Amino acid sequence: MTGTHDFYGVISPVLTPFGKDGNPDAERYLALCKWLLADGCTGLAPFGTTGEANSLGVQERMDLLDALVEGGVDPKVLMPGTGLCALSDTATVTAHAVELGCGGVMMLPPFYYKAVSDDGLFAYYADIIERVGDARLKIYLYHIPPVAQVGLSVDLVGRLIKAYPDTVVGLKDSSGDWSNTKALLDAFPGFTVFPGSEIFLLEGLRNGAAGCITATGNVNARMIRNVYDNWQTDQADALQAEITAFRQTIQARPMIPMLKAIVAHFNNDPEWNRLRPPFLPLDEADAKAGIAELTEQYGFELKAA
Amino acid sequence: MTGTHDFYGVISPVLTPFGKDGNPDAERYLALCKWLLADGCTGLAPFGTTGEANSLGVQERMDLLDALVEGGVDPKVLMPGTGLCALSDTATVTAHAVELGCGGVMMLPPFYYKAVSDDGLFAYYADIIERVGDARLKIYLYHIPPVAQVGLSVDLVGRLIKAYPDTVVGLKDSSGDWSNTKALLDAFPGFTVFPGSEIFLLEGLRNGAAGCITATGNVNARMIRNVYDNWQTDQADALQAEITAFRQTIQARPMIPMLKAIVAHFNNDPEWNRLRPPFLPLDEADAKAGIAELTEQYGFELKAA
Repeated sequence: MTGTHDFYGVISPVLTPFGKDGNPDAERYLALCKWLLADGCTGLAPFGTTGEANSLGVQERMDLLDALVEGGVDPKVLMPGTGLCALSDTATVTAHAVELGCGGVMMLPPFYYKAVSDDGLFAYYADIIERVGDARLKIYLYHIPPVAQVGLSVDLVGRLIKAYPDTVVGLKDSSGDWSNTKALLDAFPGFTVFPGSEIFLLEGLRNGAAGCITATGNVNARMIRNVYDNWQTDQADALQAEITAFRQTIQARPMIPMLKAIVAHFNNDPEWNRLRPPFLPLDEADAKAGIAELTEQYGFELKAA
Repeated sequence: MTGTHDFYGVISPVLTPFGKDGNPDAERYLALCKWLLADGCTGLAPFGTTGEANSLGVQERMDLLDALVEGGVDPKVLMPGTGLCALSDTATVTAHAVELGCGGVMMLPPFYYKAVSDDGLFAYYADIIERVGDARLKIYLYHIPPVAQVGLSVDLVGRLIKAYPDTVVGLKDSSGDWSNTKALLDAFPGFTVFPGSEIFLLEGLRNGAAGCITATGNVNARMIRNVYDNWQTDQADALQAEITAFRQTIQARPMIPMLKAIVAHFNNDPEWNRLRPPFLPLDEADAKAGIAELTEQYGFELKAA
């Protein structure tokens, strides 16, 4: 399914660069975003899990988003992550994204307290929507139980769509569980569903998904976009097999430091190797080995867009 | 062990009241804090798990803390929770608490990303300490793996104490696992350890703990304090058995809404029944049943302090 969604295709959650002082580096961030859009991404999701978003403060997120829009990125292609633990902080950064004209926001459920009820999560989203109070708000729910622990059941998603059909318009499913993605696609035709990995891209598109939102888009957008563009051709399965294998090679190592090591290596820019604690960089030998595997197995290199 | 610690005795994490508009109610908050100190608490931990802290925004925490100190609460008895997901937000609220003169802060590890390394968590705390850069900073680590999922190993605690002996001075152990509390007490004599429940108060004191930091302090500080004051007497075991049973009755229902229902009931103030999503109040019948059990089994009532 394409064309009927505001967001579709290959959306990359954006890696966040940090400077020597440990603070976000807005200049490198803008440069990466522009490069990703030129390399095949149809949209960007700043402040996803991959972007170390939950290591970024409230003000830092707003400042970085300002920098992207001031730097010339079309806010319509931006779907920033705005789901923090605290309802009030979530409302603040969400309202800011809407004011900037962002095409949507990607919103985690509140994730500190565990075993909360669907009624409680419904009340949370309802409260955010009321606080933001803006018809331009388009929420893409973010379901990532392996990390957030708190997830969004199919039943809860249905209740939210029913109550807020013009606001709760999509979902990123990073459960890694295709049966959950399939259940959402079957239950809610017209609702915009993105698998959270390109491994499910082709199967997703065949079942009505709008594309994928994937961490590896940071380094492999072009190949993933090629699957998206050719999913109805005879080549589709072979192309999908290739990006699946590539993804598996990447995720054999800790994903975020590995992606940063790749960006650092191919841009000759070691600054990109910096992560914010609690994350640490890969050790150099491990990063080199990972990059060598990608080069040997896929003839991979990051090319200037 | 008493007298050698800056914080000791019965410390209550403070329930947070919310007004009709869903925002924190600073006036009721201040009143509860003063009441708790008059009722037997030797210290207060605003913004703990019980205080729905992780549903409170960065600015809300700072505003509430300001309100307590401006309202006359001695900052020396305050140990606010300042551990958020993001290093930068944690540094901001921690520096604010230090500036206000708080006796200490209680600091969760960053809890969004899972399976992070001890090295990464060490780097996180080191970075916070460096950013705050104030010799007055006293950190009480907050270990609560059942909720935060990310915990603090005994080994990591030892490394932090060794690197920052004047700053990393204590720990609240809400693991619910006495063997972990005992391991900390045995490993680090002089380090201030608080079990996170009064169930372990007497056993803790006999093994060198400084007291306890406990949710039920919000309603039962006087009885818990009585155990603390008499732990070396013949009555100690009988007194401990009583507060253990009381705790078990409370925690048979969802703890935070049950505590708020008790405060609401005995103060004839239904405003206290409000929680911030994702939490919801107990249903009325359930709350009444819980309060009836406490009244019948323990002759319990909240008395004006």
